[in-house]
Amino acid sequence: MSAVMAMDRLDAARVASVLARVVENRPRVQCLTNTVAQNITANMLLAFGAIPSMAIHVDEVAAMAEGAGAILINIGTINAESELAIPKLLEVARERGKPLVFDPVFVELSPLRQHIAREVLRLPNLVVRGNATEMTALAFDLASAEGVTRVTTGKVDRIESGAASFSVAHGHPLMTKVTGVGCAAGALIAACCAVEKDPAIAAAAALTAYGIAGEIAAERSRGPGSFAVELVDALAGIDEATLAQRMAG
Amino acid sequence: MSAVMAMDRLDAARVASVLARVVENRPRVQCLTNTVAQNITANMLLAFGAIPSMAIHVDEVAAMAEGAGAILINIGTINAESELAIPKLLEVARERGKPLVFDPVFVELSPLRQHIAREVLRLPNLVVRGNATEMTALAFDLASAEGVTRVTTGKVDRIESGAASFSVAHGHPLMTKVTGVGCAAGALIAACCAVEKDPAIAAAAALTAYGIAGEIAAERSRGPGSFAVELVDALAGIDEATLAQRMAG
Amino acid sequence: MSAVMAMDRLDAARVASVLARVVENRPRVQCLTNTVAQNITANMLLAFGAIPSMAIHVDEVAAMAEGAGAILINIGTINAESELAIPKLLEVARERGKPLVFDPVFVELSPLRQHIAREVLRLPNLVVRGNATEMTALAFDLASAEGVTRVTTGKVDRIESGAASFSVAHGHPLMTKVTGVGCAAGALIAACCAVEKDPAIAAAAALTAYGIAGEIAAERSRGPGSFAVELVDALAGIDEATLAQRMAG
Repeated sequence: MSAVMAMDRLDAARVASVLARVVENRPRVQCLTNTVAQNITANMLLAFGAIPSMAIHVDEVAAMAEGAGAILINIGTINAESELAIPKLLEVARERGKPLVFDPVFVELSPLRQHIAREVLRLPNLVVRGNATEMTALAFDLASAEGVTRVTTGKVDRIESGAASFSVAHGHPLMTKVTGVGCAAGALIAACCAVEKDPAIAAAAALTAYGIAGEIAAERSRGPGSFAVELVDALAGIDEATLAQRMAG
Repeated sequence: MSAVMAMDRLDAARVASVLARVVENRPRVQCLTNTVAQNITANMLLAFGAIPSMAIHVDEVAAMAEGAGAILINIGTINAESELAIPKLLEVARERGKPLVFDPVFVELSPLRQHIAREVLRLPNLVVRGNATEMTALAFDLASAEGVTRVTTGKVDRIESGAASFSVAHGHPLMTKVTGVGCAAGALIAACCAVEKDPAIAAAAALTAYGIAGEIAAERSRGPGSFAVELVDALAGIDEATLAQRMAG
Repeated sequence: MSAVMAMDRLDAARVASVLARVVENRPRVQCLTNTVAQNITANMLLAFGAIPSMAIHVDEVAAMAEGAGAILINIGTINAESELAIPKLLEVARERGKPLVFDPVFVELSPLRQHIAREVLRLPNLVVRGNATEMTALAFDLASAEGVTRVTTGKVDRIESGAASFSVAHGHPLMTKVTGVGCAAGALIAACCAVEKDPAIAAAAALTAYGIAGEIAAERSRGPGSFAVELVDALAGIDEATLAQRMAG
């Protein structure tokens, strides 16, 4: 982990290939996510060509997750019931080898969230997406997590797994002014993990497409309200030509 | 049920009459609905001229429902608490003869949802709205449900009760690319049921207006983000002239 | 309380000063709010320059609130768990002297909400924001609440504390056609309370800026859908010149 790794960038064809597989396979992403971000998360997944499903009830989350292509766990509004649902989802991920993306929202503010995060981080081959503050708060546990892919989003997104390392320098500051944009990124990464075996490539593809959609949306909007609308339209309209043009810049 | 029934279509004046009664009476629709769709459901009800109210607490759902014009139950994010609230709402509907619309979201994916659906389907005179997959999963129970109105939404919506049968061929594919658009349809049907005694006519009126709003919105948008915004504006702006023009097409 | 008090109006410089302090200090507002309004509440706080955080779990709400600049409690979708979280938030507010804004949504419809409201109203120095129906339903309890600031929003907003009284005649009827606009007002007041000691001035500043944003948004929109988008953009773009121009009108 302390070794210096070369930062790679995907090319447009490779990103487009991952996105095309999402559109073709329409993976269902089972999201246990916060109630603030549920709506934008579902809409971003639909714009991406994936199928959102959300469940929280302890008696059904496993059944809902079993047929899904990937699982998202986001603790932004964790409650007593979703806390009990998390072990059920971890079990499905473990037994079925299903990709799982974990988003430790505001983990630095709450001992409860730190406790839950530690439990989740015992799952091998997890993808963890957080901002720098959240990833730093979990640094100790991330260092010992088996096969983890660390996705630190920010002005430049950094993706680090044991095998690969990517840097994504797309996006726009307005993405931090709309609630749930970061949370939805976790869902898009999950959708890509459902169709691409290498989680680092999946994450890099998702964040490249999302960041470029953010750049396009920013050019078409005059504030965070219109930006949120344009971001969905731009993500739905992403194609390889757009990716190639923006990634060459 | 196996008899062939002629498919009727409402005319614009009849649809407009139902919508005008919603605007005039401003019925409150008590929604026990999923947290993904709560926001768009409330906004569509407001655009329609109705009043949304949402509650989940077992100790208050009955009180909140008693003065409402209609009740919506949608199990998209059913949890332990809302599961307990459902019998309370069924009791109010039964005792007060209040219209109740049931939306069995993803019932095909979860045994828990199938169990809940079966309980709800014991209520006489229910309106059930689902997509073809959901309605097929419930076919056996729907066949024996007393006085049920079956609303199967899709490219062409089909509405079937013991007494009448309607077909609504309005709408746009973008309606399936925005989360909660289908769930909000259930709420609009409930609002119409509060002012129109025949639930099949109420459902047909709601879906005709909503589908036409979808057509107008699609013409004004360039993706699912702008479509969602335009759909609210179009629904709020529907009048008899617009209905007549679109229904003649 | 029965004494006639002169209704004051803030001038643009004073409103701008409060807004500038929000932007400078970026207060985090801990929101226990209803799931219908969580998204718009978070987006309005971000547009205002504040930081939203939301939590409900009994085991973490106190920790999440302790570092926050202000607290919002809104009972629009109160459930068994958030009911238990409220006393924890009241305790943090009391012990740390943290500003707390209470929004008694639909208190007139539910005995449970009346019971909860009475408990909350025991906290000294509370800001209560409601519409006329809600404030009337609580009139008896408000009359005896120690140090309370009463904010009654409507066509003209009225703000009354023991020390001061303001009237805000900004806004637009479309603000009542978008769900959560009123709930988000409570969060903006909380953000201003985090940076301005006088809660009446804080509330008047928040509602003046919000109402003016509503006027600007209405001029740019053609229905409640586009209005909701424009409202966020307009709030994010408010500056002293705009305030001065609109407040002179």
